[in-house]
Amino acid sequence: MWADLGAVGRDKDTRGYHRFAWSGADADCRAWFRAQAESRGLAYELDRNGNQWAWLGDPAAGDAVVTGSHLDSVPNGGAFDGPLGVVSSFAAIDELRARGAQPSRPLAVVNFGDEEGARFGLACVGSRLTAGQLSLDKAHALRDAEGVSLPQAMERAGYDPEAIGPDPERLARIGAFVELHVEQGRALDLSDRAVGIASAIWPHGRWRFDFHGEANHAGTTRIEDRRDPMLTYANTVLAARKKARLAGALATFGKVGVEPNGVNAIPSLVRGWLDSRAADQETLDLVVAEIEKAAVERGERDGVDVRVTRESFTPVVEFEHALRDELARILGGDVPVLGTGAGHDAGILSGAVPTAMLFVRNPTGVSHSPAETASEDDCLAGVTALADVLEGLACR
Amino acid sequence: MWADLGAVGRDKDTRGYHRFAWSGADADCRAWFRAQAESRGLAYELDRNGNQWAWLGDPAAGDAVVTGSHLDSVPNGGAFDGPLGVVSSFAAIDELRARGAQPSRPLAVVNFGDEEGARFGLACVGSRLTAGQLSLDKAHALRDAEGVSLPQAMERAGYDPEAIGPDPERLARIGAFVELHVEQGRALDLSDRAVGIASAIWPHGRWRFDFHGEANHAGTTRIEDRRDPMLTYANTVLAARKKARLAGALATFGKVGVEPNGVNAIPSLVRGWLDSRAADQETLDLVVAEIEKAAVERGERDGVDVRVTRESFTPVVEFEHALRDELARILGGDVPVLGTGAGHDAGILSGAVPTAMLFVRNPTGVSHSPAETASEDDCLAGVTALADVLEGLACR
Repeated sequence: MWADLGAVGRDKDTRGYHRFAWSGADADCRAWFRAQAESRGLAYELDRNGNQWAWLGDPAAGDAVVTGSHLDSVPNGGAFDGPLGVVSSFAAIDELRARGAQPSRPLAVVNFGDEEGARFGLACVGSRLTAGQLSLDKAHALRDAEGVSLPQAMERAGYDPEAIGPDPERLARIGAFVELHVEQGRALDLSDRAVGIASAIWPHGRWRFDFHGEANHAGTTRIEDRRDPMLTYANTVLAARKKARLAGALATFGKVGVEPNGVNAIPSLVRGWLDSRAADQETLDLVVAEIEKAAVERGERDGVDVRVTRESFTPVVEFEHALRDELARILGGDVPVLGTGAGHDAGILSGAVPTAMLFVRNPTGVSHSPAETASEDDCLAGVTALADVLEGLACR
Repeated sequence: MWADLGAVGRDKDTRGYHRFAWSGADADCRAWFRAQAESRGLAYELDRNGNQWAWLGDPAAGDAVVTGSHLDSVPNGGAFDGPLGVVSSFAAIDELRARGAQPSRPLAVVNFGDEEGARFGLACVGSRLTAGQLSLDKAHALRDAEGVSLPQAMERAGYDPEAIGPDPERLARIGAFVELHVEQGRALDLSDRAVGIASAIWPHGRWRFDFHGEANHAGTTRIEDRRDPMLTYANTVLAARKKARLAGALATFGKVGVEPNGVNAIPSLVRGWLDSRAADQETLDLVVAEIEKAAVERGERDGVDVRVTRESFTPVVEFEHALRDELARILGGDVPVLGTGAGHDAGILSGAVPTAMLFVRNPTGVSHSPAETASEDDCLAGVTALADVLEGLACR
């Protein structure tokens, strides 16, 4: 099962994955999902938003226990972020059958489309649409780097973009959603445990910082006559790291655009995107305000105008305590309970459905990179834990 | 004459120019040059490297006085850098004729191709090829951002790329080359003069700094587990400004590339290009060495590997003293004599031909931007000065 999926969308040089929504690699991943469902005799279903479902039992019966994750990737992503959850879900169904467990509730495996947002710049598009957290206007306006809109991309991949929209009937059938995911940090590794349970997803957001200076010749403009926005940007990058470190938060500038981006030209504009997250809203607000203040102060020295736009924001997601406690009881009382900075489809669904997450140890802590990893033993421990959870929730 | 040229390759929003070598806008500029030559009865000639010439008198007679500049631009460039020299050359020929001056030496106006290097990343391609300062291997390896090679671009524009190469016979016919250029700084403005003479072009170069870190998830990777090359880059940008300021030199990071350049990804690689210049070689070497040292030291703290590659270098160009003094004598003894940080075709030719430059006041000092400017009075003063120089050199 792993081996079939492992080759899809892989760069032969970097060994990283390029599985963007509605691309050819995405279609191959979807074909793999459907084949896995059908080979197990699970009822395959494609929903109006392009999410894939594989049902054991009657979907219409209600109070279903659903597990799964996503198959798409960031650019040059790792093998585990997303696929580990889907593969483990099918493997957990196999394990339940091997145990002879008899489900009293419907079970399903789901593959949510476009979780990473690598192509259209918005994460969790499939689950957001289903949960009514993304308006049709905004969905239709999404465009990739080549200017292809989301509806165009769906149509080219053979899907009907007219169908997209909220799907409350589908959500109403779900009694619990459990997503298994490779850990994107080292908390399990540092506590020497293979599997953990999520407590909450940190509040997080993206802010675009536009530093407007004045284009000029790099070889002739006196230092005192310059309004160089690269200096203000550079100072802001260092300030962001410092403010985040002092507050125990995270702040990263990972994306930059420069105009005109010429070797011998002082830029007219440097645009940097800040990704920031913290355990609570108050800390996050404080850190971002401090970074903005540092940027504006340095901008005044550099003759650079600084404008900050919040492009996206997700408040803290506390996973439902009753379901979390149930998972902890099933897995044994001392299983680690972790917060996480990353967004997930589980976070999107948590507003509508009781939701929980399991994490599998990642010894490097590295994620969104080919260096992302999990040992075979830990992956199997994850499958066992997920099977235990499905059995505990659905088979009594 | 100005008005016909003024619309070519202009962005209607920014009012800046996009005239890249061998593009459609470049072809329009070249057609304009040829029409100017022919309307004056000057003999039009295209040389093997795509430079355009307009001759008054017999090119084969030798000891010619040549003036001119270039018509291509940087991205979103100004109206004056390059075109002012070409337009003033034709206007100076008109002025000589109006004065009834009788040249005793051949005169020519030249438009050197691809001076800015905006498309293929190397400046002064036309004059370098002619002067034998660019090997055919290197010229054939030049590629633009779309992967189009210089020979392919020339062929698509209807030129024969097989012909390119050194042209010593052509250079041997030239007794003096005088390039008029808008000043790319404020020295004339600060000394309240319309026209000045160049003393020297500062030594300058481009260095590529590759900062190799580790790609990781911006939302989950602990600060202590990061190897974030954006921090090392940012610190290097600030160090470059500081080291340059203390040494009275210039150092600019105006171009950046980031991989994977995602909002929620710590970069694996940040690549920044340093442009640095100083009045003398020793100062330049010292400044670049100090910037590199600061980058490597910060890289050790960040877990980031820093590699520095010198991509181009041009030693100091001292314009020939005899010709410079002759120009000063013609224009009156108190004309300002200025050094400049910018490279020019005149700098390339100065190794083979007695060469001089005239600068016209630019009150903003801004260059390589739509804000680059010169008053009509100052432009006319530049034409008069150039006509005086041509008359003084060629008509006695």
